[in-house]
Amino acid sequence: MKKSTIRELSLVYKLCVLSVGVLVSSAAGATDDLMSAAKEAFEPIPSVVPAIKDNTVTHEKVELGKTLFFDPRLSASGIISCNTCHNLGAGGVDAGPTSVGHGWQRGPRRAPTVYNAVFNVAQFWDGRAADLKAQATGPIQASVEMNATPDRVLNTLNSMTDYVVMFQKAFPNEARPVTFDNSAKAIEAFEATLITPAAPFDQYLKGDEHALDDQQKAGLKLFMEKGCSSCHNGINVGGQDYFPFGVVERPDGTLLPSADKGRFAVTKVASDEYVFRAAPLRNVALRAPYFHSGQAWSLKQAVGVMSETQLGAKLSDKEENDIVAFLNSLTGQLPKIEYPRLPTRSDATPRPSLDK
Amino acid sequence: MKKSTIRELSLVYKLCVLSVGVLVSSAAGATDDLMSAAKEAFEPIPSVVPAIKDNTVTHEKVELGKTLFFDPRLSASGIISCNTCHNLGAGGVDAGPTSVGHGWQRGPRRAPTVYNAVFNVAQFWDGRAADLKAQATGPIQASVEMNATPDRVLNTLNSMTDYVVMFQKAFPNEARPVTFDNSAKAIEAFEATLITPAAPFDQYLKGDEHALDDQQKAGLKLFMEKGCSSCHNGINVGGQDYFPFGVVERPDGTLLPSADKGRFAVTKVASDEYVFRAAPLRNVALRAPYFHSGQAWSLKQAVGVMSETQLGAKLSDKEENDIVAFLNSLTGQLPKIEYPRLPTRSDATPRPSLDK
Repeated sequence: MKKSTIRELSLVYKLCVLSVGVLVSSAAGATDDLMSAAKEAFEPIPSVVPAIKDNTVTHEKVELGKTLFFDPRLSASGIISCNTCHNLGAGGVDAGPTSVGHGWQRGPRRAPTVYNAVFNVAQFWDGRAADLKAQATGPIQASVEMNATPDRVLNTLNSMTDYVVMFQKAFPNEARPVTFDNSAKAIEAFEATLITPAAPFDQYLKGDEHALDDQQKAGLKLFMEKGCSSCHNGINVGGQDYFPFGVVERPDGTLLPSADKGRFAVTKVASDEYVFRAAPLRNVALRAPYFHSGQAWSLKQAVGVMSETQLGAKLSDKEENDIVAFLNSLTGQLPKIEYPRLPTRSDATPRPSLDK
Repeated sequence: MKKSTIRELSLVYKLCVLSVGVLVSSAAGATDDLMSAAKEAFEPIPSVVPAIKDNTVTHEKVELGKTLFFDPRLSASGIISCNTCHNLGAGGVDAGPTSVGHGWQRGPRRAPTVYNAVFNVAQFWDGRAADLKAQATGPIQASVEMNATPDRVLNTLNSMTDYVVMFQKAFPNEARPVTFDNSAKAIEAFEATLITPAAPFDQYLKGDEHALDDQQKAGLKLFMEKGCSSCHNGINVGGQDYFPFGVVERPDGTLLPSADKGRFAVTKVASDEYVFRAAPLRNVALRAPYFHSGQAWSLKQAVGVMSETQLGAKLSDKEENDIVAFLNSLTGQLPKIEYPRLPTRSDATPRPSLDK
């Protein structure tokens, strides 16, 4: 059997298993059964920071990671930080549609949120980074984003005593702790703290019947019955697996530009053309515009597009509103973040470079 | 008498009065006299937020102002906020030499710090804004900076319920509180909280003999005896008055580009050519590169340039180091700032515009 055919069958299987699960659960119809079905498909965001593989999260590492996250001097220009595109005050994204980077260049895709990103199966819209540590090294070096090099970053960090001390504290057992890899580890540790528990939907999943209002419950029911939860499930209500954008009907070229073939660029497998990681929907109400193209400017529009292109269903106005109401229940409590004091430059710190 | 001649005489008078004061004080030589002389020339940063003319500082106004300060959607592109150039994690300035704005354009002058700016006689390097409220409206509209219009800003703010509520709370007695002017007032109120008390030099001014070490005291003595404090005095160790850059000797064209005639652009008085507001030196150690051109990358270099061009004095290496040590004692305690959660866009919020 051809690899692509196996993958197609695998997708059909994934969708079927999930749909059957949903149908069984929703058949009962009662409120208790809605909660039971939801508990099967989803999982609440924990209130404590999750452990990360091969990277113990310590206070010192998180502080360093936060400082790096907000430091625009990790970019060649000195004006772009991680927070520029993953704005922690704005749901972890920028104003869209796609990000602006070095030289006023426009990036090809919408910035994904860093909030709860630790729970995704992999990072980026196409999953090309296995984890947040691998992700963090990408935009720093991308010429269309921060346009730096590992050497430049290391020269910058080593030039400031306060950074060197922070690395020593964050990686106490290492003889030479200031490395590009450790920068990424520290950023990953900080990003692991960017979780947003206690959304109304989390409270509901934990048994509080009254955490959702009637419209939100109706929306949740539709979300499962119509098939949205076939792809958007698990702890992040998405972010767990890859699916084609346009299962039933191809979205128009604005929403799905033909040049961006999604996960195909990672796997080179034909069936991965226009395949993307299902968007994680936690805090989605904070993050318009939507899709990898950033071209759907309201949640209602995004819900309409998804139902038509992915499920072949034309929802009524009421149904769309109900689902939007449910999606609004996914907004959790954002962590309090004290803005960091950045280490002070020395004579050895590389100067900003605006060259394109 | 010609206006310019009057101004020149006025400058000579200002410098003489201050210099005489310094000479008298320093003649005594003893440590107590150094402190007395310092108390005459300088003033400690208060530990409480100062009152502002016609703008009562309230908690609600400060919260609104902080949110606006960090909100990049006040710019046309949606990626430049006040904090981009006046980075509160980096002494209230950007990486320099001059700021990068809309369309990757380079601004003409170094970003001045917002910390303790409330104590300056006027705002901008040329004093063209009487206060922080007037200042705040400038960069938002400047095509080389945030490139927005008051209309765009008002459409943005009115499109988000959370902003409208914040304005209602900040300006409770106004029927239509969402105005461009009130935005500036709120930013001014927030900036009034950006004061940095308790620097070693403040403790010294308050009578703690041991707050400065011997080298810092030697530097302070030189700072007054050599004449630096003729221009850099008062609460902000500068920022109180205007002086020519190049009193004795014209700095080279890199430091003093001939196209930027400083305060002349404001007053159109010939004697104001190449006149600038004396840089306020609070936290100066955090803010390289220096001067309005941002072309002196170390504090020691800046001290050397100043002594030669302004005072006609060639300082020894030790003298320069002593003065730098004193300037390091001007670094105060930066306020803790919780990163704000920005209101969420609605369908009516203007979309980002990158057009140049």
